[in-house]
Amino acid sequence: MRVLVTGGAGFIGSHLIDRLVGRGDNVVVLDNLSSGQLAFIQNHIDDGNVVMVNGDLRSLEDVMKAMSMDIDTVFHLAANPDIRLGTRVTNTDLEQGTVATYNVVEAMRRCDVKRIAFASSSVVYGEGAPMPTPENHGPCMPISLYGASKQAGEGLISSWVGTFGLQAWVFRFANIIGARGTHGVIFDFIHKLKADPSRLEVLGNGLQEKSYMEVGDCVDAILHVMQTAEEPLNLYNLGSHDTASVRRIAEIVVEVTGCTDASIEYTGGDRGWAGDIPKARLGIEKMLATGFDVNMNSDEAIRHTATVLLQEIGLE
Amino acid sequence: MRVLVTGGAGFIGSHLIDRLVGRGDNVVVLDNLSSGQLAFIQNHIDDGNVVMVNGDLRSLEDVMKAMSMDIDTVFHLAANPDIRLGTRVTNTDLEQGTVATYNVVEAMRRCDVKRIAFASSSVVYGEGAPMPTPENHGPCMPISLYGASKQAGEGLISSWVGTFGLQAWVFRFANIIGARGTHGVIFDFIHKLKADPSRLEVLGNGLQEKSYMEVGDCVDAILHVMQTAEEPLNLYNLGSHDTASVRRIAEIVVEVTGCTDASIEYTGGDRGWAGDIPKARLGIEKMLATGFDVNMNSDEAIRHTATVLLQEIGLE
Repeated sequence: MRVLVTGGAGFIGSHLIDRLVGRGDNVVVLDNLSSGQLAFIQNHIDDGNVVMVNGDLRSLEDVMKAMSMDIDTVFHLAANPDIRLGTRVTNTDLEQGTVATYNVVEAMRRCDVKRIAFASSSVVYGEGAPMPTPENHGPCMPISLYGASKQAGEGLISSWVGTFGLQAWVFRFANIIGARGTHGVIFDFIHKLKADPSRLEVLGNGLQEKSYMEVGDCVDAILHVMQTAEEPLNLYNLGSHDTASVRRIAEIVVEVTGCTDASIEYTGGDRGWAGDIPKARLGIEKMLATGFDVNMNSDEAIRHTATVLLQEIGLE
Repeated sequence: MRVLVTGGAGFIGSHLIDRLVGRGDNVVVLDNLSSGQLAFIQNHIDDGNVVMVNGDLRSLEDVMKAMSMDIDTVFHLAANPDIRLGTRVTNTDLEQGTVATYNVVEAMRRCDVKRIAFASSSVVYGEGAPMPTPENHGPCMPISLYGASKQAGEGLISSWVGTFGLQAWVFRFANIIGARGTHGVIFDFIHKLKADPSRLEVLGNGLQEKSYMEVGDCVDAILHVMQTAEEPLNLYNLGSHDTASVRRIAEIVVEVTGCTDASIEYTGGDRGWAGDIPKARLGIEKMLATGFDVNMNSDEAIRHTATVLLQEIGLE
């Protein structure tokens, strides 16, 4: 089977490709390397299992180039990974999220490719949802521009399912963390301690509390669910069983890095930035009902991630 | 108060402007007259109560031009009105819906305009929702490209509420019908009978059943809800109490037009086109709880609309 992974050189994409190559798929990667790194998948390229198309999802022509390579299934993971950016630059999520997803489904229609998995996010639920939040929560009113682009992507895909006969798996991710992470709170904390081991500034009051899922669990869940769920449109939350606070993350990172004398300083307020959701926990009963369960809960995933990112980033 | 009505020369927009001018507002209209008609609002322009900006919502520059005219509240009604078009042309709803809405909220941010009412649609709910469908139904999985663009518009607006402090009223419309209609099933039926009074072709099996709301009720509901609902983001279904089948509409149109000898012929299938929702009925308890009720239910609204559109279109 030949699959296309958009954003395949990125954090989650590269882990997914490890699995796809492992099960014997041929993989085409479409990535503009804006946040992904070729090094993440270089071994698979060298082995001839991955073909890299250096292109931009904002260009239908670039997407068509990759889509026309006899693709069976698309894993659409490419997106702007920096949620906070939307508070300063408002067209990034529209173009790299919404328009990019339009280009993907439109290229699928033109090339008669029928199966797509889409990386959506828990942030589509917005603020004030019951926790744990089930897939059938409504109305979904995202408060970040990133969340708006993920919701728009979901809608585009569901309309292509209803109008042009696609089959889709839409995954609403918890906070996905792990090796090769290129953004996010643990990544930021390590970089801050690298710059100044004596203090760690935390955005907000540290009481923000979210569910964390290790990236290996995430990509295993994707592939498992796709083998068990066979509706035209399949919607699944992917997350772990519990949550962790930002305070807890700061404590773990300080411990793992050995910067135990660092003073942890909070900027205050209930959220890190406008558009940040202070508390989020996904209902994962639907995922569990497929027979999949995670290997790590939030605390373990955070400790694991801090350990591997420390190796990747270094403190010197 | 000075308000901006996008799509103000259109079907619903022009009725809204009748009310806005009636209550003493100054109105700026932004419309490219692609489906709207200047004649619908010419009287208000002549009276000096409406300023017309002939511009395209796809251009941020055009939207900025209208938005910079000291606007207090935006009524964002402009959109591609032809849902079926998405089955043939896939970028219309993306550009005239999603990107246009981005330009509206972005121009609001730049011009510090804080209040927006948005015309969304019952089609965001997708297929298989419980009926009557309440506002908190989830997940919303639209099956038409038009529905996807309305959902994307909702998400953009809610993210601007959450990130940049807008206040918004999002209205999910039932099928809005009435004078000056420029599309839709009654409009189509009269045009078909005008072309051939001996037969009326009906798309689908005629058992499609939806809720119809007279446009005067719709614009009254918008203004009433905006005066009573004061949350940062207010979401309301707008519709009537009941539904009517397409068979019933065909019978009423045949009767009103006097084409009583016309044979009504069904193309078959449970829907008019791919992406059409066969049955839809909105829960309107939330609207009713504001103290507003409709003057017409579906049958009355259809008969009224057939009568006035017959006068506007004519059979000769």
